[in-house]
Amino acid sequence: MDQISPELLAQLQGSFGSLVGQQSGYIKSLPEPVKRRIFALKQLQAEHSELEAQFHKDILELEKKYLGLYSPLYEKRNEIVVGKTEPTDDQVEAGKKVDEEFTEEIKESSKEETDDESQNAKGVPEFWLSAMKNHAQIADMITEQDQEVLKSLSNIRLVYLEENPGFKLEFDFEENEYFTNTTLTKAYYYQQSAASGDLVFDRAEGTEIQWNEGKNLSFTVETKKQRHKSTNKTRVVKRTVPAETFFNFFTPIEVPDAEDLDENEENDIGEQLEADYELGEEFKEKLIPHAVDWFTGKALEYEGFGMDDYDEEDDYYEENSDEQDEDDDDDDDDDEEEHSSAPANQQAPECKQQ
Amino acid sequence: MDQISPELLAQLQGSFGSLVGQQSGYIKSLPEPVKRRIFALKQLQAEHSELEAQFHKDILELEKKYLGLYSPLYEKRNEIVVGKTEPTDDQVEAGKKVDEEFTEEIKESSKEETDDESQNAKGVPEFWLSAMKNHAQIADMITEQDQEVLKSLSNIRLVYLEENPGFKLEFDFEENEYFTNTTLTKAYYYQQSAASGDLVFDRAEGTEIQWNEGKNLSFTVETKKQRHKSTNKTRVVKRTVPAETFFNFFTPIEVPDAEDLDENEENDIGEQLEADYELGEEFKEKLIPHAVDWFTGKALEYEGFGMDDYDEEDDYYEENSDEQDEDDDDDDDDDEEEHSSAPANQQAPECKQQ
Repeated sequence: MDQISPELLAQLQGSFGSLVGQQSGYIKSLPEPVKRRIFALKQLQAEHSELEAQFHKDILELEKKYLGLYSPLYEKRNEIVVGKTEPTDDQVEAGKKVDEEFTEEIKESSKEETDDESQNAKGVPEFWLSAMKNHAQIADMITEQDQEVLKSLSNIRLVYLEENPGFKLEFDFEENEYFTNTTLTKAYYYQQSAASGDLVFDRAEGTEIQWNEGKNLSFTVETKKQRHKSTNKTRVVKRTVPAETFFNFFTPIEVPDAEDLDENEENDIGEQLEADYELGEEFKEKLIPHAVDWFTGKALEYEGFGMDDYDEEDDYYEENSDEQDEDDDDDDDDDEEEHSSAPANQQAPECKQQ
Repeated sequence: MDQISPELLAQLQGSFGSLVGQQSGYIKSLPEPVKRRIFALKQLQAEHSELEAQFHKDILELEKKYLGLYSPLYEKRNEIVVGKTEPTDDQVEAGKKVDEEFTEEIKESSKEETDDESQNAKGVPEFWLSAMKNHAQIADMITEQDQEVLKSLSNIRLVYLEENPGFKLEFDFEENEYFTNTTLTKAYYYQQSAASGDLVFDRAEGTEIQWNEGKNLSFTVETKKQRHKSTNKTRVVKRTVPAETFFNFFTPIEVPDAEDLDENEENDIGEQLEADYELGEEFKEKLIPHAVDWFTGKALEYEGFGMDDYDEEDDYYEENSDEQDEDDDDDDDDDEEEHSSAPANQQAPECKQQ
């Protein structure tokens, strides 16, 4: 399910003519009876796609059914994590038997504790932040400042969409000084591929974050001195520069029309979309189902070999389009950079928060 | 399902201690009541894994059910491809309506044909070879010589294993001058991951190819002159050098014990295993279900963005362990390379055909 819908591809690529052309010359050159057979094969493929479409619907139904079965466990997990309920001794003893190697390791260090800290710790502090930091692809997106906010992250939930095929990730936050939203969501919409019957990603939507004054992590403010060439007067100009933050995850990537893009830009946006969809899948398939294993690091054992896949995703932010020059209207000025929060020529991510 | 079983990982990596250690220090430092909660969370995770194991079994059953529904279509496809049955006019007309853009393109070129070639073409010549050549990851493995053999490839079939979870790919060949097998198979065995409940790849098995005399594509013979240092006599030594060929796909990758490997070797073998499993999945999920779309190139439209993933797989052959020196018993000789079919220092793939 890491594919992108043909419609989105078409918007990005303009048309597929060039790809298909590679092979169609060969097919054109085939004798007429062979062409007839290929048409018949295409008809069989169309029948196959109808069955396949039903298969993918059945899979989605199965996923929904099991989410229903997992949900009571997720609720119990959340109650423990946020400190709403305290586990019974029986639960703790059963938990110690699950993974004896882990239990041994943790036990070893046990010591008498009488300080207040141990009595006052509520639930499992920084549970989701710690889990996310053990997932390389997600950790890559988390800045120092993000960590402060993500300490307030109290739950991540998965919901399937009702009217469209797709799913929604819901991030619950305790009250914090950064934004007023209590839940941030990211929804991924599927679309049935006419060609293969598969459900493919079509688009994503995210919550607009209600940042508190001066707390918006999605940009920094640069102060610049400008000197006019003829009058030699200087003035101070402030401008906002997009900043890297995990919270850009909630701002969908904009897909411009193909005609406005060169090939590199198409590829960049394609890669960004793919990275975004993959990240959604990681939360859905890995973080949410196995949160405690990400928290303890155990998930790295059974997800071990996938780790080097994440290197490709390092460019999630790095390969963005050029920073837009906002000084176009003033082009006989010399710019003197000063107190810039980022080097002047560093490619900053495009600002998606409008 | 591109994960590798923990047992296989353990064999490769020795132990996981180092990974878990990253986080366990942090957990050790937590107050006792928090540790209790983590044990309770682990108990909930264990309950989750049981449900998840059942989910993955249900998915596998669903896959088997649909393979049963697809099979009559695959049989009809094969009969047309090998020229056993001729499509009716109705089938051909229906096929022309499936993809009108394609039909237009092919029609344009139609011309009167009265030559014998058109009457004599049997089925769809080189159907599977052409389909495979349009799949970048598979095409990368096909040498010029392989193409000659793969012209005889008449069908690729998917079968689920009966006694173990897993699947088998069956490659049917018409009589050819290279080997006597009529079917080559590659079986992939799953194993239930105790940790996540997921079905993960455990091991693969392949058919031993019965190569005809002098036709074995998995090695080349090098002729070498050796000059003895003290006597100054020369002698001619022949040795076999492993060669790149698609048919190495049927020779499972050997996994040595971790203690015999350094970290780079572990990573190399891990990458080879992953590439091998991914290739099996590509045949299972893409080539077999949508063969005509790979033949015409249409599959490149809906699989478009996945293409750059294949670049990683270029090293399927390149990053093998060092060529074994078979001259160990003769180590005060100077080697003079001559008529070598490959440069002396080129890292050749390890010969897996014993």
